[in-house]
Amino acid sequence: MLHFDSDYMEGAHPLILKRLSEINFDKNEGYGLDPYCESATEKIRKACNCPEAQVVYLVGGTQTNALVSDAIMHRGEGVLTPRTGHINTHEAGAIEGWGHKVIEIRSELSKMTAEDIADYVDKFFADGSYEHMVLPTMVYISNPTEYGTLYSLSELTAISKVCHERHLPLYMDGARLGYGLASPGYDVTLADIARLVDVFYIGGTKVGALFGEAVVFANPNLNVTLRLVKHHGALLAKGWLLGVQFDTLFTDDLYMRISANAVNQALRLKQALLDKGYELFCDSMTNQQFVVLENSKVKEMLPRAGFKLWEKFDETRSVVRFATSWATTDEQINELIAML
Amino acid sequence: MLHFDSDYMEGAHPLILKRLSEINFDKNEGYGLDPYCESATEKIRKACNCPEAQVVYLVGGTQTNALVSDAIMHRGEGVLTPRTGHINTHEAGAIEGWGHKVIEIRSELSKMTAEDIADYVDKFFADGSYEHMVLPTMVYISNPTEYGTLYSLSELTAISKVCHERHLPLYMDGARLGYGLASPGYDVTLADIARLVDVFYIGGTKVGALFGEAVVFANPNLNVTLRLVKHHGALLAKGWLLGVQFDTLFTDDLYMRISANAVNQALRLKQALLDKGYELFCDSMTNQQFVVLENSKVKEMLPRAGFKLWEKFDETRSVVRFATSWATTDEQINELIAML
Amino acid sequence: MLHFDSDYMEGAHPLILKRLSEINFDKNEGYGLDPYCESATEKIRKACNCPEAQVVYLVGGTQTNALVSDAIMHRGEGVLTPRTGHINTHEAGAIEGWGHKVIEIRSELSKMTAEDIADYVDKFFADGSYEHMVLPTMVYISNPTEYGTLYSLSELTAISKVCHERHLPLYMDGARLGYGLASPGYDVTLADIARLVDVFYIGGTKVGALFGEAVVFANPNLNVTLRLVKHHGALLAKGWLLGVQFDTLFTDDLYMRISANAVNQALRLKQALLDKGYELFCDSMTNQQFVVLENSKVKEMLPRAGFKLWEKFDETRSVVRFATSWATTDEQINELIAML
Amino acid sequence: MLHFDSDYMEGAHPLILKRLSEINFDKNEGYGLDPYCESATEKIRKACNCPEAQVVYLVGGTQTNALVSDAIMHRGEGVLTPRTGHINTHEAGAIEGWGHKVIEIRSELSKMTAEDIADYVDKFFADGSYEHMVLPTMVYISNPTEYGTLYSLSELTAISKVCHERHLPLYMDGARLGYGLASPGYDVTLADIARLVDVFYIGGTKVGALFGEAVVFANPNLNVTLRLVKHHGALLAKGWLLGVQFDTLFTDDLYMRISANAVNQALRLKQALLDKGYELFCDSMTNQQFVVLENSKVKEMLPRAGFKLWEKFDETRSVVRFATSWATTDEQINELIAML
Repeated sequence: MLHFDSDYMEGAHPLILKRLSEINFDKNEGYGLDPYCESATEKIRKACNCPEAQVVYLVGGTQTNALVSDAIMHRGEGVLTPRTGHINTHEAGAIEGWGHKVIEIRSELSKMTAEDIADYVDKFFADGSYEHMVLPTMVYISNPTEYGTLYSLSELTAISKVCHERHLPLYMDGARLGYGLASPGYDVTLADIARLVDVFYIGGTKVGALFGEAVVFANPNLNVTLRLVKHHGALLAKGWLLGVQFDTLFTDDLYMRISANAVNQALRLKQALLDKGYELFCDSMTNQQFVVLENSKVKEMLPRAGFKLWEKFDETRSVVRFATSWATTDEQINELIAML
Repeated sequence: MLHFDSDYMEGAHPLILKRLSEINFDKNEGYGLDPYCESATEKIRKACNCPEAQVVYLVGGTQTNALVSDAIMHRGEGVLTPRTGHINTHEAGAIEGWGHKVIEIRSELSKMTAEDIADYVDKFFADGSYEHMVLPTMVYISNPTEYGTLYSLSELTAISKVCHERHLPLYMDGARLGYGLASPGYDVTLADIARLVDVFYIGGTKVGALFGEAVVFANPNLNVTLRLVKHHGALLAKGWLLGVQFDTLFTDDLYMRISANAVNQALRLKQALLDKGYELFCDSMTNQQFVVLENSKVKEMLPRAGFKLWEKFDETRSVVRFATSWATTDEQINELIAML
Repeated sequence: MLHFDSDYMEGAHPLILKRLSEINFDKNEGYGLDPYCESATEKIRKACNCPEAQVVYLVGGTQTNALVSDAIMHRGEGVLTPRTGHINTHEAGAIEGWGHKVIEIRSELSKMTAEDIADYVDKFFADGSYEHMVLPTMVYISNPTEYGTLYSLSELTAISKVCHERHLPLYMDGARLGYGLASPGYDVTLADIARLVDVFYIGGTKVGALFGEAVVFANPNLNVTLRLVKHHGALLAKGWLLGVQFDTLFTDDLYMRISANAVNQALRLKQALLDKGYELFCDSMTNQQFVVLENSKVKEMLPRAGFKLWEKFDETRSVVRFATSWATTDEQINELIAML
Repeated sequence: MLHFDSDYMEGAHPLILKRLSEINFDKNEGYGLDPYCESATEKIRKACNCPEAQVVYLVGGTQTNALVSDAIMHRGEGVLTPRTGHINTHEAGAIEGWGHKVIEIRSELSKMTAEDIADYVDKFFADGSYEHMVLPTMVYISNPTEYGTLYSLSELTAISKVCHERHLPLYMDGARLGYGLASPGYDVTLADIARLVDVFYIGGTKVGALFGEAVVFANPNLNVTLRLVKHHGALLAKGWLLGVQFDTLFTDDLYMRISANAVNQALRLKQALLDKGYELFCDSMTNQQFVVLENSKVKEMLPRAGFKLWEKFDETRSVVRFATSWATTDEQINELIAML
């Protein structure tokens, strides 16, 4: 049985398991105060060209989004997001759970424009009742987005400018960041992100780690305390488990190399889909491919290949998603293509 | 200077002040455990034809909306609302402050349809990821709405049916309820509301009381405890101040009689606006009238008449709101008409 | 039937009712942006000798305590309090409801010492695990306390010093502040409080107002925004109702004059209790008197006089509380004394 | 350098690493819906003699305590705990962060008695103001406690009886549960716990797992939804990582066998301490040993052995804690004894 259901179906890159085994009986200090976290942080700072960044290691994405947004926002404040932003749709209200509003603004295929952000904020402050309204205080984007789309360097630069002119920290959810950075022709680097964005996270769970996300506070005015992490129930006792994973991923460019595999496999699939005349739902250059399939085709494939039914397209067709990962093999893609 | 800025610019109906004076030196038990609250509750139950309703007296609207929704919802749950619903726009995130999501659904002039509610909920449960999403667990409507519009008996009946089939309590924000019920030709009564809606409040602050809202839990499965009211900081020590006000408003039909004045004055203004060829922004049969004015006209009038700039209409015109109240006089409306 | 159950059983001082009537049909701007609030604020600033203080008018005590502490504290932070502090015992967890811990420290008859506060905080920072513990970030005292006791000038000065050396805002719950300030021989003035304390409130509900508390942010670095007040559901639409009450109370020293009556009546009662050989539970110089009564005496009196059963003293006796108010008359005290 | 700082300094039992490697490239369904979680659950149910228990796998202890208590409590409710309970001292206010009060009651060496619990609750309901007070709705105990002490079968039975008579769910924090169950002569089994306690967790992080805690809802009326877990940011995407760990720990009695090693090593140390004439701070039969050391001795040892300074004992002595783990070796204990 093939599986393209999601990009977090496998464990970790073998080098990570190897290092976890090697240090298994060492005695490590807890809570991220170990040398592996320290080393990983140095490597991430270097990769981001951001020597002063605070880097914090957390276990999962919803936890990270909730913690970061709670660290930035106060009561009566809200975060701007595209309608399909993960915090708005698939985190069971975790942001609201900590007391903050998630404010949808206009978006297309999970992307907002700088203009729409500016427009929302400017209209807000022009409204005579704005003291009664939730203050927009930060902006959430995911990159790649939930539709596999990417913000180009010019788009990201424009959004960054609009946010900073209005004193809104810009936060990037990078659950799949590697699968964007490794996309052929993508003009944004990790250093660009650290320069344009205030806080972002480098996703590990979906990109080669057993689990874990590395949160980078590139803006030196923003950070989290150990106490806040603990308060959120997000402080891993054995923090070195996260440190050693990210240290491995950021040694010898491993993170980028394994990300590239996922993207390449996805683009082979995309080409095959186009060659066979399938209609793509959107143009993704990352590891998620959205395609319109006849419902009969879906029914025929499902017993042999796992993938996600995304949404109804029309009465006889559905949008489905195929997700590759760092671990996807040529054979798996070949088999899938043969099935289509 | 004339004032049509809002419907809560005056104090209370004189009968209320009189009764407050009369009992001023009596010794009353606190927290709503007094005979005035008891008497008011009996009268409200009767007016609602709902002999078992729990009636709770609170001080203000945002407090009421936050308390009621927090009493109904658990963590990870959300309330459906029109985009312009007061809880979504003008309560500084109070609902989210208690941990719940406010979920906008399609609406027009602050009104949702039964179909759109059903559609949202049914699609929600058809989504394979729904356990990761905020559960829609109640529905918020205001009546009259923020645009002065009203839900007809058939509309309300349809919404009630859709909600109850899906086990969603239906909550009505009645900040201006009197100004709807007293609208000529409106086919909904207090008893209809108590029959169709699970919880609603009868607004006093805007309708003749010094302050206060009477929350009616018509659905016997829903209620609030004194402890929850206290937890919200919403328990008035001298609860009898609220009891005696609502007891007065529900004696000899006072609430309806003074509501009728506001509506009649507003409809006189509306007719005058139409006669003078003004464009109404929407067709309101209640105490709020929205009209499109030239910006030059706005500028000319503002030094002599207070009203609310609602929103930009186009480059040269604005939507403005005139609000009448139970205390608005013929003279005030005459003067305003003369100015238009 | 006599009533000494509590100090909030009557309405308002007649001058307040009179002024509410006088302005009843004026058109006032909402949300505290009216001239009465402005005037009251000027008078309170003057009485406090604190010309820059932010003064905010709220409806009740729990609401005030929750809002002020939420304005000062962030996540993972806590407020030090005596065990019997109102926020710790009788507010249904309102402080915790907004996410903050209430930290009991050693106290006697509701009073903490400067030493105990210092000791707690210094031990906290000496603990190697303090980053995992709730950060003590403010100190709550009530004055008069829940046992009618008072902080002397030297005690308050010492607490203020200890707090400020440790950067802990000191907050005073002044629900019964008048009944302390008017106590014969009490050496603390409103100006002392504004000088020594960072935030406090001047209770109106129990001291002559229909309802309302005036919160004084004496420390210019602390304040609340209108948005936060709204977020807490604590923004009274008709804010002028509060302004006019406090304007009246701070005109011609009314607040102090009516407070003195309550204290004088209580001290007459106290003397009579001593004369008759009753055992006082504690030595209160304010409007609350705690006395040890035989249970048979309690049973005998209750049909004719309301008072509060405070706690069991021993198998045959109880501690009871008699509370006087600004409205208590000579006759009422005479009758009570005759009954004892 | 020796290390007895804590019991979570090593990675995982080698069998766990081996199984994680074996399934690394399998494609597993996320969120705990995998066969490893299913198998672990069956084994845990069997070990607990509780075939209907819901078993949920989480990452860490604070997360677990916050989630379980939030699942059980509503607003205005609180959890009874000993003063030194982990939720009260070392979780940065996580319980309060979700809106609930932590209520300290009398305790000795982290243990409460059934009598003290009953006394608190019965006095609560006898207080005329109890509707204004935080409702005690659950009881938290840790076992072993923070001082290494254990609740005996008769103590646990008495507490269980008192709680259930008063409808208070009893929750046991089992971060070190194995180190209690494996204590020689301890008369409580996993099945006893499942019978007497409503919810508890079997700690993995400190007992052989890389990370993870297995929460057992033994009371069929209590549970958590996947949505609530997600809302708390506590849903591990790759849930099978937890499943496979607990499946391994509950195969062939591994959990008990490795727990026994920690306890045996700790008891060897304890005997040596007694033989050498040291004063134990308390009598622990589990993996944590608390001993009173001269400060000079502490200073001498610290460069060669890590352990925890627990608290000041008197001017010249301190209480220190030595913690063993499943991975502690004979040699390590021998070396430590030689140093003492």
